[in-house]
Amino acid sequence: MRGAYAIGIDVGGTRIAAGLVERKGRIVRESKILTPKTAGPFGIVDAIVGMVEEITAGVHAAEIAGVGIGLPAQVDFTRQSVEYSTNLPLGGVDVRGLVMSRLKYPVTIDNDGHTAALGESRFGVAKGVKDFVMVTLGTGVGGGVFIGGRIMRGSRGFGGEVGHIVIDVDGPPCPCGGRGHLESYAARPAIIRDARRAAATYQGSSITRLAGGDEDAITAEVVIDGANSGDEAAVEIMGHVGDMLGEALVGIVNILNPQAIVVGGGIGESCPLVSERAAARVAAEALAGRRDVKVLMAELGNDAGVAGAAALAFEDHDSREGLH
Amino acid sequence: MRGAYAIGIDVGGTRIAAGLVERKGRIVRESKILTPKTAGPFGIVDAIVGMVEEITAGVHAAEIAGVGIGLPAQVDFTRQSVEYSTNLPLGGVDVRGLVMSRLKYPVTIDNDGHTAALGESRFGVAKGVKDFVMVTLGTGVGGGVFIGGRIMRGSRGFGGEVGHIVIDVDGPPCPCGGRGHLESYAARPAIIRDARRAAATYQGSSITRLAGGDEDAITAEVVIDGANSGDEAAVEIMGHVGDMLGEALVGIVNILNPQAIVVGGGIGESCPLVSERAAARVAAEALAGRRDVKVLMAELGNDAGVAGAAALAFEDHDSREGLH
Repeated sequence: MRGAYAIGIDVGGTRIAAGLVERKGRIVRESKILTPKTAGPFGIVDAIVGMVEEITAGVHAAEIAGVGIGLPAQVDFTRQSVEYSTNLPLGGVDVRGLVMSRLKYPVTIDNDGHTAALGESRFGVAKGVKDFVMVTLGTGVGGGVFIGGRIMRGSRGFGGEVGHIVIDVDGPPCPCGGRGHLESYAARPAIIRDARRAAATYQGSSITRLAGGDEDAITAEVVIDGANSGDEAAVEIMGHVGDMLGEALVGIVNILNPQAIVVGGGIGESCPLVSERAAARVAAEALAGRRDVKVLMAELGNDAGVAGAAALAFEDHDSREGLH
Repeated sequence: MRGAYAIGIDVGGTRIAAGLVERKGRIVRESKILTPKTAGPFGIVDAIVGMVEEITAGVHAAEIAGVGIGLPAQVDFTRQSVEYSTNLPLGGVDVRGLVMSRLKYPVTIDNDGHTAALGESRFGVAKGVKDFVMVTLGTGVGGGVFIGGRIMRGSRGFGGEVGHIVIDVDGPPCPCGGRGHLESYAARPAIIRDARRAAATYQGSSITRLAGGDEDAITAEVVIDGANSGDEAAVEIMGHVGDMLGEALVGIVNILNPQAIVVGGGIGESCPLVSERAAARVAAEALAGRRDVKVLMAELGNDAGVAGAAALAFEDHDSREGLH
């Protein structure tokens, strides 16, 4: 069938994943590689092109609706240009043009928080939910805002950076240069910071034991595993992550009045305590009438990015063909 | 001309203003009364009906497109019902139905932050700006969010409560029951609190002089006048209001990526220092690519509410008549 598949690419700071995706979101072929960080922008473009060729081998070109690419970058969606990227050397690089010139498919790029939100919206826990906010907790905190069933991109396409809402004017520094942003409490580096601090105390010494006795081996995953199995110090750290997420969500819920919040990303999806505690804060502190907002855990895991990027390609294809 | 005028009503905690408004936003007749706070919901409805009758005297009914009412309340816009109101006894009251049963015009209700934003959008400083956020600083902090040229209402119509974004998890209590919200730094009661605290110190003693030597006579207006004429202690207080507004705006700009912020309300419109300081914070701390967001002072003053409520009635009329 014409346009039966789309290719979704999820470019991360660590890994690039590519998938051949059916219209209902099923990923029928997938490929993953480590991000070639040191090879410059062309290295990343080469990698994307190579992955697309690999997973489309034997598929007729007419069956491919297009290629969607989610980038860890600020993307001007209307101009389809990469404006800024802190983790990869892509700022100012015409990723779309470079990829498209070497493939026979149309290409659409977007911010990776947007594609993840699109994935959960079309195929995951937010299916059918028109107004929701996705928050992804991982190396950084990203996300996407859905309003009326569409991604809210803002004037230049930079909308949805829910990790950079100020929740404490005197809080710790944020990698973006700000202070007291959600990201400075709820991303991997913040968890490691808090865990090392706790590990230096008597009450928190269990954290070091969980890391095999080596304080330098403390990772966010060690703390999350500890919290999930009831270690008190780890529960306190991850509970605090949930509380701070909740404080940010109070503001978001009061401003946007969404039906649901979807908590995803590696941290959000592996530690139920985080969304539980965040939900409790929202229920206690949001303005009357919106305390019943659902706080849901994302369902698609790492596939959200690939499936969402493919959904973007399908949407673009169908609007070009006048299908909606 | 059929539907040449609309009636805009701005119901406030202190005053109710009503205006007969032309399509281009000019208010050709106006009436203001003190809000009959102690007469219960029917007292307020009676007052609205009386004002409409007064300002439409001699105007042919066919010339009136409808009545728009902005309420200091959380309004479920789809159901046209008042869900909550902290300042007036209107929660659960069918304001629209009660007013409409006694007048021959269609009635539409909305939150007063939304109507003020609509006013600035159609007739004021935000004319032609598709994506902007209005913040009104007064007795409380309210506002409205415009996305793609339309009010963003959220799932139940409660969106736009920008006064209730958390900017300091350990901050002072907010009238809504929360803690460290923008409203607990930037509304009239917060200014009076900070001014009294300053007045008790040597550095701040000028504040008491500005209030005629009587500490109990310190009002927000005294502090604003002092700041506008360069009193150091007053400048510090109002500068802090601007800084805190700026912190909230950093989060709002990062999430929504608007073209402009419109600062209004009695405090926002009378003290340029507030929006200047807020703009400086946004320029320094928002994520790259959005620091050029314009921070504008509202233009319409108290008329924004009346004109915006009328705009709401025009929009409703025209969509009923299939005019757009």
